[in-house]
Amino acid sequence: MNRYETLANAMADEIRSGRLPIGSKLPSIRQITTQHGVSQSTVLSAYYLLEEWGLIRAEERSGYFVTPGASVAPVETPRAQSLAESAKVDISSLVFSVLQATKHVGAVPLGSAFPSPLLFPLSRLAKSLNQGARTLNPWSTVADLPPGNEHLRRQIALRYVGAGIASPIDNIVVTNGALEALNLSLMAVTRPGDIVAVESPGFYAALQAIERLDLRALEIPVDPVTGLDLDALAAALDKHPVRACWFMTNFQNPTGVTLTDDKKRALVELLTAHDVPLIEDDVYQELHFGKTRPLPAKAFDTKGLVMHCSSFSKTLAPGYRIGWVSAGRYTERVQRLKLMTTLSASIPAQAGIADYLQYGGYDKHLRQLRNAFKSQLSSMQVALRRHLPARARWTVPSGGYFIWIELPDAIDAMALHQRAIEHGISIAPGPMFSATHSFQNCIRLNFGHPWSGQIEDAIRTLGDILVDPEMRATARHFRSCAADTEPTDGI
Amino acid sequence: MNRYETLANAMADEIRSGRLPIGSKLPSIRQITTQHGVSQSTVLSAYYLLEEWGLIRAEERSGYFVTPGASVAPVETPRAQSLAESAKVDISSLVFSVLQATKHVGAVPLGSAFPSPLLFPLSRLAKSLNQGARTLNPWSTVADLPPGNEHLRRQIALRYVGAGIASPIDNIVVTNGALEALNLSLMAVTRPGDIVAVESPGFYAALQAIERLDLRALEIPVDPVTGLDLDALAAALDKHPVRACWFMTNFQNPTGVTLTDDKKRALVELLTAHDVPLIEDDVYQELHFGKTRPLPAKAFDTKGLVMHCSSFSKTLAPGYRIGWVSAGRYTERVQRLKLMTTLSASIPAQAGIADYLQYGGYDKHLRQLRNAFKSQLSSMQVALRRHLPARARWTVPSGGYFIWIELPDAIDAMALHQRAIEHGISIAPGPMFSATHSFQNCIRLNFGHPWSGQIEDAIRTLGDILVDPEMRATARHFRSCAADTEPTDGI
Repeated sequence: MNRYETLANAMADEIRSGRLPIGSKLPSIRQITTQHGVSQSTVLSAYYLLEEWGLIRAEERSGYFVTPGASVAPVETPRAQSLAESAKVDISSLVFSVLQATKHVGAVPLGSAFPSPLLFPLSRLAKSLNQGARTLNPWSTVADLPPGNEHLRRQIALRYVGAGIASPIDNIVVTNGALEALNLSLMAVTRPGDIVAVESPGFYAALQAIERLDLRALEIPVDPVTGLDLDALAAALDKHPVRACWFMTNFQNPTGVTLTDDKKRALVELLTAHDVPLIEDDVYQELHFGKTRPLPAKAFDTKGLVMHCSSFSKTLAPGYRIGWVSAGRYTERVQRLKLMTTLSASIPAQAGIADYLQYGGYDKHLRQLRNAFKSQLSSMQVALRRHLPARARWTVPSGGYFIWIELPDAIDAMALHQRAIEHGISIAPGPMFSATHSFQNCIRLNFGHPWSGQIEDAIRTLGDILVDPEMRATARHFRSCAADTEPTDGI
Repeated sequence: MNRYETLANAMADEIRSGRLPIGSKLPSIRQITTQHGVSQSTVLSAYYLLEEWGLIRAEERSGYFVTPGASVAPVETPRAQSLAESAKVDISSLVFSVLQATKHVGAVPLGSAFPSPLLFPLSRLAKSLNQGARTLNPWSTVADLPPGNEHLRRQIALRYVGAGIASPIDNIVVTNGALEALNLSLMAVTRPGDIVAVESPGFYAALQAIERLDLRALEIPVDPVTGLDLDALAAALDKHPVRACWFMTNFQNPTGVTLTDDKKRALVELLTAHDVPLIEDDVYQELHFGKTRPLPAKAFDTKGLVMHCSSFSKTLAPGYRIGWVSAGRYTERVQRLKLMTTLSASIPAQAGIADYLQYGGYDKHLRQLRNAFKSQLSSMQVALRRHLPARARWTVPSGGYFIWIELPDAIDAMALHQRAIEHGISIAPGPMFSATHSFQNCIRLNFGHPWSGQIEDAIRTLGDILVDPEMRATARHFRSCAADTEPTDGI
């Protein structure tokens, strides 16, 4: 026990025994310092604990007093809410409930948006971070304001060149992860009330951003095998004043589908014809199971219409919060929005990632990471075939770490989610991925964690729940995961 | 010269000599690798340089070609724009032009918003960052999602307790610096079209955020001696449906004025009576020259209406981008907005600051920093008295590192700004700090840099410019810095 905890406990005893009665003023910090021979910060920490326990309360500048609740034994604030907390069926609550469930280290994280942090070279990265921080030019705290650390942007530009893509270093703006890159890009090209085309099913963060910025979502169907429905998009562009598109072209979240190069080219041509910018979320680009990295739509962009967003969070450095956007003709606007909202990404973190990219062996790490995901996918497929009902269907993704599963029509993924969290298992139910809460019978599972008996058991448990007659009784909707041929108008 | 630079120069010679003619295809990366005995990444880096020089261009997947512009000698892209670049008189351009000017390490940074990075314990911090990163639990990349690293939030909560302020740890959300805390707080309580009360003069970031979120600014006068005009605020609250206030109560930017405790209490009571939330920007709280840290308005808040925003950027760790908000009743909303927009603050940076706060000697560093600013302020006052025209007036601040100067009425601060940057000196002209471009004859100077002959010379130069007859000829506006008794309605 720390010194301050010892002190806090001693004082708590004084309070509970009544020697320090309710409403009485506690000794001053100086008195305690002298009396107990401890430092001022120890007393402060102890008082803080007592306050947290609900035993004392600070009154403005006059000191600390024993609270009326002090006679009962202190109850520790529960550290986190119960996994089984009921989830309301609206996008934000649903998304936050699933995110909250994935914060429980104990839960089997099949619903998580993140791969296992154990797959990343965190100690090698710490070395690069240390190197970056120790050799940081103090003036870089000013010089590395957006667009960002030049060494890092050069390394990012090199990876574009390696893929045969022209992305001048001056078009790269470093951000707090891809999520900020996407949000800034969306802000750069829209005003409240504008219409934005998104995928259905698609990444819920797009829907949240649209809601937050008072935009309107137009959902374009995504087929789990062929991807975005370009005809539906073309029809939507003809019919509606679409101001921007937010799409994932590679290993799409949640379906895992990747557009062919021909489709990517056609997509860019279509948007160019309508002069509509594309916010391209390409965070899984490096996680390909095939031999070469798939191209982004950005590779076919000649007009600077594509804002290509990515990060190191899913491939190298979870938690460092370093991403970027290559923002084409919108670069200056994005850069200004960055300056206005969060000023800059963490400067030592930028320097650390730059150092790692140059010296840490990124490509070797990526090969290992891809192999891990690939092998975990195999195990996942075996388990799914073994434990899921015969009528469950899925498409095998060629990269990333998500698999999208269509369950029998009578299954309600929300009820499954509820039952699963009761068993300490998180899943991502289909309705999270649509503004209209479609995909009631679909779920997204994460295979980004080293395979284990616990995961195998979790899949078996899901299979057991699915054949429980009660599950069918709770099914309220009967929608298919198959893409409609008409765009769902979410306006 | 690096290996890739050598290779790039050799190939540039081939191109310029015409041995590799315009339009011709470059050898494949594999060919060069074999031919020159260098690695693939060396070739990629060289090609990247050649591309940056404008000598070659990547065509989608088919390879690299010599560009039509290749016969002329390559011109290095200028690293940054000229200091003397013309500044348009609208808030955003003006602010960005001044920010841009402060990025020039060579310029005398009297217009900078930042203190000198040399005054911070960057190497001791790097040690803490290393400690934080090396001992990071890999799962913290998930567990430290908002509200943020618990160790850090506990340390922040302790500093509130030390000031006698009740701020439960659960109300503290860690952000990417105070700027994000302020922006998230504003988003949490407003919708497009809402009216927000701001100070005039006030921090331009408030105006930028209001512009960005399609809100409307209502300017409340700030007197450089007594601070915010509470009567004007009361009248504004009666007349307009004000949805939020964004104020600095301590060492206000730009005037440096601090409200008395009585005024802070009255402010909170007034806002409580109208149920209007206060976004309190308190980033300079620790930079007091007096014996004790001034209280924030938050100390008088009993209803959870005050969102108290601060950071370590101005006191300890510039560039780490770690700030926070103690958000009262709006905590959950702020936390969700954080999750939706930038997910989390850099996790190793959070751990590093937490480690420093516990072991690094923050209070000792703060004493040194305050002493440095105090002595720099003395030097600044001596120089101002010596070099500025007799009719220039200023109020001596009791903390922070800004001094707000009212120049003779005939002076146009915009013209002074323009002339100053021609001399390699940045200043912050008054119109930056008002939606209505008032304070034409005022400037804000930064004394956060160790005093030097260069700064002394810069003040002398400003004095020389001010007595130049041309300056008076360019003056176009004749407004006073003195606060109006009526609020300026910027709607």
